[in-house]
Parts: sequence; structure tokens; C-alpha cells
Amino acid sequence: MGSGGALVDVHTIGVIGGTGPQGRGLAYRFALGGHDVILGSRSRTRATEAADDLNGLLGASAVVRGGGNREAIEASDVVLLAVPYDGHRELLEELRPALAGKVVISCVNPLGFDRAGPYGLAVPEGSAAEQAAAVLPDSTVVAAFHHVAAATLLKTVDHDEHEDVLVCGDDAGAKEIVIKLASTVSGRPGVDAGPLRMARYLEPLTAVLIAVNKRYKTRSGIAVTGLRERG
Amino acid sequence: MGSGGALVDVHTIGVIGGTGPQGRGLAYRFALGGHDVILGSRSRTRATEAADDLNGLLGASAVVRGGGNREAIEASDVVLLAVPYDGHRELLEELRPALAGKVVISCVNPLGFDRAGPYGLAVPEGSAAEQAAAVLPDSTVVAAFHHVAAATLLKTVDHDEHEDVLVCGDDAGAKEIVIKLASTVSGRPGVDAGPLRMARYLEPLTAVLIAVNKRYKTRSGIAVTGLRERG
Repeated sequence: MGSGGALVDVHTIGVIGGTGPQGRGLAYRFALGGHDVILGSRSRTRATEAADDLNGLLGASAVVRGGGNREAIEASDVVLLAVPYDGHRELLEELRPALAGKVVISCVNPLGFDRAGPYGLAVPEGSAAEQAAAVLPDSTVVAAFHHVAAATLLKTVDHDEHEDVLVCGDDAGAKEIVIKLASTVSGRPGVDAGPLRMARYLEPLTAVLIAVNKRYKTRSGIAVTGLRERG
Repeated sequence: MGSGGALVDVHTIGVIGGTGPQGRGLAYRFALGGHDVILGSRSRTRATEAADDLNGLLGASAVVRGGGNREAIEASDVVLLAVPYDGHRELLEELRPALAGKVVISCVNPLGFDRAGPYGLAVPEGSAAEQAAAVLPDSTVVAAFHHVAAATLLKTVDHDEHEDVLVCGDDAGAKEIVIKLASTVSGRPGVDAGPLRMARYLEPLTAVLIAVNKRYKTRSGIAVTGLRERG
């Protein structure tokens, strides 16, 4: 549904990987922010169940739908990729025709774990977001939302201690859409972090936050200081 | 000098690259925090001049000395490497005997710049800090202080908007020294960011901050959210 108010550009947002924790958490915040949200999954049934769960949390104010991946994409103008890096390229190749012409947001974190903890996987294109851009030449890829802890997204919204959403991309218009959309998550616009290749540094930073979480038994996030004049 | 108070472990800190902006800024904060500081440089004269400048800012409360690189190292128990990545390996090979047995802090950022802006240089060992550890097997290397803007370090200390110092290393005791030392810069202890290899993600994050600085005409820094219980 969406408020339609002057302060919000209402989007229809398809969430691929919408049954995973990051996808569900971001879908919840997008819906709270007044956007139409469609959870996509390989399994239409699981997507519909996850949508029902979110609607239970949201009450009457917002409606989340579930569907197949292609269905979620076709109904949307903005698509969030919240999928594991494992199988990432193959999934995007499969969805390429449906994703043509869409703004595609990647929050994919290519991470591995060994005895020393989490680390960033080597990605031939430099980052998962750049891989998406290479596989999807007819889509506009923006990278964002790598560092927001899935578990905190579904809790009561508390912007007392602000996190920031770092947003990078090569298309100014698409980046601006995501910068605005970020306020549904962090309570203020996202931070323009430069061109898409900056995703090479944003994605593995998640490994650092996971190490911090383990050490301090918390759910950490990132804030950018020195930008206090922002909304 | 140093306060000698129970709250501060006083160190004698040699700053290699002590005449550059990052080295001078961190040296200033360390001296303000009550530590003995010796600026090291290839040129003893330039080091002494830089020390005189800092002493002018510090007043009578602290004394910074200047000297040759080897002299600065030999008088210190903790050594900060604040040198450019260009020539990094060769300089460390030259200083290896003097650095044996010391805690060595690397804040080195291997960055390049092209038409699209700043980016992280490929380092064979993964990061400048890991290169230092490889070249200096008899030293204990910790990585920290990558993200503090040199220009803000020399200004009036203002912890109103906290930055965090992310600290990574493989030796718990050395890391604890640097975590405590970080409070001279950020007003609170540094954040334990895991093993030394995390420097692979901390070093090029500086490229993101430089892009943010350009976009927002500010001096940005990093804070970690979710750790409010810390001092």
C-alpha cells in the first residue's frame, strides 16, 4: 500500500531471497516505510508463508505479498537481492531477462569462515555487486544494506543510536532512490559511498562486524561520523 | 613525561613517518594522553622541527622529541608506522633489527587513485599490516588508526561525536595495549576487530571515507554501533 505522502517516493520492491533473515528483515522495514513489498523465493509456498509472518508483525498498515522470484521481480520497479553468494551468478543468469530495466540492490556478502573466523571470499569481478552488474547489463545495480544485522531489523524500530547505510553505485538516479529508501532502515538517508566498485570494501567489512559481534556479544553496525548536518 | 596515573599505561612511542600529517596528528594525541613520543624520520632535522611544532601546540604539559628513525625506535617500546605504502617493505626490511621485540602499530593505507577516485591497492600479503608482520617476524604487529582524519587530530579534542578506532592483531597482549592507547584519539577504548588479517578490510575502507569526504565536503570517520556499554 504505502502512504503516498510527499516525503516518500513509494516503490514496489521485490525481495529475492525474501525468506532468508536479511531479506525478511529489510522487507519488514521497507513495508513499515510505506512501500509495497513482494517476497520472492524459489518456493512460492515459502514466500507466501514468510509474507504472512511479516503481515502479522505489520498489522493492518501494510501488506506484504509472496510469490515466485520471477513474479516478485515482474511486479516491482526496485529489486533487492538478498541471496547467498553461493549460487549467486547462476541465479542472476536465470533471472536476467526479468531483471532488465529494474533498479537492482545488492546486499550480498561473499563471506567464508575458517578457524580464524569470518573472511571475505575472492570474487572474480571484485565484489558480488560488480558481479551482478556484469551479469545484468540491462539492469542498474546499486550496493547497500550490507551491515544491518538481520535480527535487529525485525525488532522495534529504535533510531536512538543511528546506524548508517552505505550506498555505492555508478548511476546517480538509482543511487538516489536507494539513499532515500535507506531511511526506512536507519532513520536517515543513506550515505553516498561512491562508485559501485566500493562494494569491494563494503562487503567484506561485514566480516569485521561479525568478529566484533562475537567478541562483544552484541549486534554491531556502522555509523559514519562527520555528517551531522544530514537529516 | 606522562601523568603516571593508574588509568594510563604510559608508553614511549616512536612514530616512524612522524613528519607526515597522520604521524604528527597521532603523535599529538599520544602526547596529550601523557605518553612519551619520539618522532622519527629519515631526516633528523625535519623530525626535530616537527617535534618543535607539536610542542608549541602542547604547551608545557608534554614534550615530544625528534630523531632519526632508528633512534626513535630504540628509545621506544611501542612504534607507530605512519609511512606511505610506497617503499613500505623496503623501509621495514631496513629497520627490522631495530624493531625486534617491539609492539609495532601499522596505520598504513595502501591506496591508489584513478579517474573514478580512491581504491585499495593489491598487497601480496593481503594488507600492509600483514606485510609488516611477514617482514618483521620478531616484532608484534597490530593494525589500527586507519580511519582517523589527520586534519582533525590536531584540532581541539572534541569527543562529542565519537569515532571508533578499530584494532586488529594476532597477539592479545599487544592488541590490548593498542586498544587502551586508542582512547587518546577517540575518547574511548579501541574496538577489538579480530585477527590481523582483518586489516585487509580496514585499510581499503579508507578509500570509502575519502569518497564520502569528497561527496559531503567533510572529514568523515567510522563509529561502531551496538557497543554502548563500553567506556
